[in-house]
Amino acid sequence: MMNIFDIKHESSDGKARTGTLHLPHGDVQTPVFMPVGTNATVKALTKDDLDEIGFEIILANTYHLYLRPGSDVIEEAGGLHGFSGWEKNFLTDSGGFQVWSLSKLRKITEEGAMFASNIDGSRHLFTPEKIVDVQAQFNSDIQMQLDVCSGWGIDKKEALHSLEITENWLKRAKSEWLKKQDEGYKGILLPIVQGNFFEDLRIRSAEFVTSMEMPAIAIGGLSVGEPAEVFASMLDFTVNHLPKEKAKYVMGIGTPDYILDAVHSGIDMFDCVLPTRNARNGSYFTHDGKLSIKQERFIHDFGPVDSECNCKVCRNYSRSYLRHLFKEQEILSSMLASYHNLYFLHNMMKEIRLAIEENRFEEYRTNFLKRYHAGNIK
Amino acid sequence: MMNIFDIKHESSDGKARTGTLHLPHGDVQTPVFMPVGTNATVKALTKDDLDEIGFEIILANTYHLYLRPGSDVIEEAGGLHGFSGWEKNFLTDSGGFQVWSLSKLRKITEEGAMFASNIDGSRHLFTPEKIVDVQAQFNSDIQMQLDVCSGWGIDKKEALHSLEITENWLKRAKSEWLKKQDEGYKGILLPIVQGNFFEDLRIRSAEFVTSMEMPAIAIGGLSVGEPAEVFASMLDFTVNHLPKEKAKYVMGIGTPDYILDAVHSGIDMFDCVLPTRNARNGSYFTHDGKLSIKQERFIHDFGPVDSECNCKVCRNYSRSYLRHLFKEQEILSSMLASYHNLYFLHNMMKEIRLAIEENRFEEYRTNFLKRYHAGNIK
Repeated sequence: MMNIFDIKHESSDGKARTGTLHLPHGDVQTPVFMPVGTNATVKALTKDDLDEIGFEIILANTYHLYLRPGSDVIEEAGGLHGFSGWEKNFLTDSGGFQVWSLSKLRKITEEGAMFASNIDGSRHLFTPEKIVDVQAQFNSDIQMQLDVCSGWGIDKKEALHSLEITENWLKRAKSEWLKKQDEGYKGILLPIVQGNFFEDLRIRSAEFVTSMEMPAIAIGGLSVGEPAEVFASMLDFTVNHLPKEKAKYVMGIGTPDYILDAVHSGIDMFDCVLPTRNARNGSYFTHDGKLSIKQERFIHDFGPVDSECNCKVCRNYSRSYLRHLFKEQEILSSMLASYHNLYFLHNMMKEIRLAIEENRFEEYRTNFLKRYHAGNIK
Repeated sequence: MMNIFDIKHESSDGKARTGTLHLPHGDVQTPVFMPVGTNATVKALTKDDLDEIGFEIILANTYHLYLRPGSDVIEEAGGLHGFSGWEKNFLTDSGGFQVWSLSKLRKITEEGAMFASNIDGSRHLFTPEKIVDVQAQFNSDIQMQLDVCSGWGIDKKEALHSLEITENWLKRAKSEWLKKQDEGYKGILLPIVQGNFFEDLRIRSAEFVTSMEMPAIAIGGLSVGEPAEVFASMLDFTVNHLPKEKAKYVMGIGTPDYILDAVHSGIDMFDCVLPTRNARNGSYFTHDGKLSIKQERFIHDFGPVDSECNCKVCRNYSRSYLRHLFKEQEILSSMLASYHNLYFLHNMMKEIRLAIEENRFEEYRTNFLKRYHAGNIK
């Protein structure tokens, strides 16, 4: 199996580490936060904005793009890169989560996931093979296996059944991916550890996935409604049963506290829509917690959102102006807030990587969270 | 009276001319199209986008900004420039048009225009003096006198009455503006020629405005519902009664055909929300007419919107991707379409200025419109 991940430095004070992912559209420094561009666009930002901030990889959603404009159109455009103009890496998910969360009708069988489109009700069948093919049409640099998602609070029998299907689907996805590789496709396929919140199922899944010898490993089925402590402990538990040398990805993580938890557990990659969704709702990340720009006290506040942030929003615009834009529902409000929030997280990841390499990640984490949770926004 | 306008070149084949406006925040090359930033933001664009395209002046609307966030806030922020971060020139209108078009209740008396806010119904009185003061608080580089708007089809008695009030308001506005100048305000005040569609009233208004010896002159009361030919002939008629050496501004003009008509008549400045509003509706300017991006035939069209346009949208994105963004109601659709439409008009103005200086404007106009109206979009 190809080596796509080099560990650069392992923290002396825990499991956090830095590394480099070698992907078809360039190297990616880890730990990395990946912004989500559902429809092959990170909402309210241009590809040039993302490049300026310094992102090396972004996400797109298979479910949405398969339905519209369709994978044939994207293939014809030269994959996601040709279609969107983003020349660095794309990770695409398998669509399994959206089948679970968005579709009105869905039926999971051994064959695949049958569902009705959330757009027009049309019926579709996702099979593990088809989803590999679709993501190969996208020319995704990292693609995900089709898996069966399950929520917080289901019983063990159901969790086991979902896991068994997910395991079989991985075998089928892997053989399809190897075929695509023979045809010249360069992207990698990631398996997903499931098992819900049952430790023995998590161990079983971790061992199975490890035995499949894939280029990297994703941890799924977390951040699905469980309490934050349950998330952190189940994540940590799962990581302990996975090989250290593999890059690890946990899906749906995008706030400073969850990111710091994940890095602490040895996670290398994460993604989330929250930074940009919050931005559109006027919520800005700051070192002192989340700032809601709509507050009346900002009308006469001509200072920056976060005086320690060097992004072009904080250097150029006042809280007063940003509040005005948000209240007037100006598009520029979403543009500037999205830019700031992604810059903030990207910068935090740079600080995290430096802290790891200087063996002071746990100290960084403690200090960051102390101040962040105190929430003393001036 | 200060000289703020130098004519550079008068076309040998008509009334079109190029010139330079000298304003507090830099020189402006004319003829110039000015994008509209109602709430101190040109919708879906950053100030850096506007700067990159090359604009030297943008508009903002007094009515909107007076109501929210209020002129005190903007003054405290360092005027519109400090508030928005746009460091070149701002032109603000008087709010008279919005009192006429947006407000539910309005009563025009000799004293001023009383109206109910379209936001919360609160009552306000705009007087000529107050509107000068508000625009001075904005630190507008060009401010407009308060005038009385009237629509297409009113009778002469009403038109005359509106004109008489507008004339008295100009006298009052001018003395208030001279006071503000004494206090150090650098912006200029523009009078507005009214008179509806009655030639003798237009002549009267033109002569009165000329006698007031203001730095430049605006022509109002056009593009209010009249046929295009009536617009063009009344504009031309009005210009003929105004001094050649003054810069002239016609309000609410922003499509290639109207712009070419206005330049033909010797107009130097115009503004309109249409290029950005159309953009948000998926309508792109091209040399071959307006292109509606939502059409199904663009699904597999991987070429640019306009192959002769050098803007970053046409250089980087395909019709297929832009259609996808529009259909998915992605914010990026509005961002890219607004950028393109403003770039297109700005570039057209550069071509117009060059054509004038090479004494071939009428030829340029004929050729441009022939192709534009043919509408053969490939």
